[in-house]
Amino acid sequence: MWTLEDNHVVELEQGIDRALQFGDGLFETIRVVNGKPVLWSAHMERLQKGLVALNIPASMEALESAVFSQLETLLESTGLSNAVLKLIVSRGNSQRGYSYSEDITPFLYVYLSKPLETYTEALEKGVSVKMCDTQCSIQPKLAGLKHLNRIENVLARAEVVGYQAEEQDVFEGLMINYLGHVVEGTMSNVFLKLKGQWVTPELDISGVAGVARQWAIEWFQQNNKTLVIRHVSQEELNDCQSGFICNSQMGFVPIAKLNNQNLELPDVMLDLQSAWMNQE
Amino acid sequence: MWTLEDNHVVELEQGIDRALQFGDGLFETIRVVNGKPVLWSAHMERLQKGLVALNIPASMEALESAVFSQLETLLESTGLSNAVLKLIVSRGNSQRGYSYSEDITPFLYVYLSKPLETYTEALEKGVSVKMCDTQCSIQPKLAGLKHLNRIENVLARAEVVGYQAEEQDVFEGLMINYLGHVVEGTMSNVFLKLKGQWVTPELDISGVAGVARQWAIEWFQQNNKTLVIRHVSQEELNDCQSGFICNSQMGFVPIAKLNNQNLELPDVMLDLQSAWMNQE
Repeated sequence: MWTLEDNHVVELEQGIDRALQFGDGLFETIRVVNGKPVLWSAHMERLQKGLVALNIPASMEALESAVFSQLETLLESTGLSNAVLKLIVSRGNSQRGYSYSEDITPFLYVYLSKPLETYTEALEKGVSVKMCDTQCSIQPKLAGLKHLNRIENVLARAEVVGYQAEEQDVFEGLMINYLGHVVEGTMSNVFLKLKGQWVTPELDISGVAGVARQWAIEWFQQNNKTLVIRHVSQEELNDCQSGFICNSQMGFVPIAKLNNQNLELPDVMLDLQSAWMNQE
Repeated sequence: MWTLEDNHVVELEQGIDRALQFGDGLFETIRVVNGKPVLWSAHMERLQKGLVALNIPASMEALESAVFSQLETLLESTGLSNAVLKLIVSRGNSQRGYSYSEDITPFLYVYLSKPLETYTEALEKGVSVKMCDTQCSIQPKLAGLKHLNRIENVLARAEVVGYQAEEQDVFEGLMINYLGHVVEGTMSNVFLKLKGQWVTPELDISGVAGVARQWAIEWFQQNNKTLVIRHVSQEELNDCQSGFICNSQMGFVPIAKLNNQNLELPDVMLDLQSAWMNQE
């Protein structure tokens, strides 16, 4: 295939990146604290699951060592010790069609960004959460994975923050799927206390299984607190007592308002937050 | 954000392409015959629908004129007169998050490839079609659009052709969604004769509304032939009399075998194919 670069026709013998063509790949966004990636093995476990599901034959060992070496150089050069590390793994280059050859070589992209501001007030007092109009797709084969097909998150996020958002004080939006299940936030997972019981949505047909979500599931287990993983219907939100959202960058943020209804601060919040801070 | 290029740390002030990060964009694959793009206005209509749905503020006029000028240069330089023109429109560059600023500038990528071989035998005798395990996602906001979130098509296509495919003589695979609706082929739309009536799946919650599909819908209308657009359940395939698949590159290809069951050649096939050939 051919394209124009700086007004010159160039032949692209290897084709072009399938991440660009089809979102054909995976990503991870990893928190770096004091020069160390936090929950590294959980991120690598999810990435590996994704590579298997997409049949991308990248060696985890080679990937990890490439990331570590690039991370070291990036940290040193930027002088950052707290940062956000973003990895993209693409299936590689191909011609224009969906099919690809057996010898296709995956790509790794490594990016370093400045860390998020710390949400001191949000972590303490909680945030306002609304429902999004944009749904999570129902796609059993890709559910749970952090793959690059994320237009729905982009559209949902634009309902919540940015120049298109209607309200200014909303922090996150919850997404349902076509069956009316509450799945997750636009950039977070959600835990809800429903009729006295902690619940987090089952992500078998929709959603991204976040690393912080997995960490919290294990925290509930280790602390002998009951947590049920199941589908949650939108109607159940009317009986929601308290809740929190989480992702690996911001940690665990209480929901103070859900659809303009005030919620109680979660009973588990302080313990969970302090355990999270301590594992860094 | 920073990355390594040729072992040097570079700062990416504008961030990176959101098509690469999130599949945040659209594409079109257009047949070029005798130097002219076929069904140009139908492709541009679908692209425009997608730009509106994704809220990408690209001017269609500027896009079309950029494509035409680049196409001319590419055809001249490669000496091709029949070709495949692939356009990708990305929302543009941003930092790592889902949100983006109001002043983000969309990108246009233009690629030219050699044309497909003509499927003389397939067009005449028909092809074998099976069911794919990979489903079409249910996502009402994106259904019908030719957006860049196409991992499911990639995975489904790999079930049909390429080194991972189990059978060698299968030409296309049909995809169902989570509700058990037959939606489309991995790279085509489908028309089925069910209990004596021509039907094509409604694409309101899943699938890509192909330009050839739209052309055929209008052909049925103009020729006073009944065609019903509705959801089709997988069970209905047991009563399928004949069928065909289509896309803008290959035209209209009869289904000779559906899940190893022989089908009759479609009654409309020759008329449809000759009308299609004549519009080029």
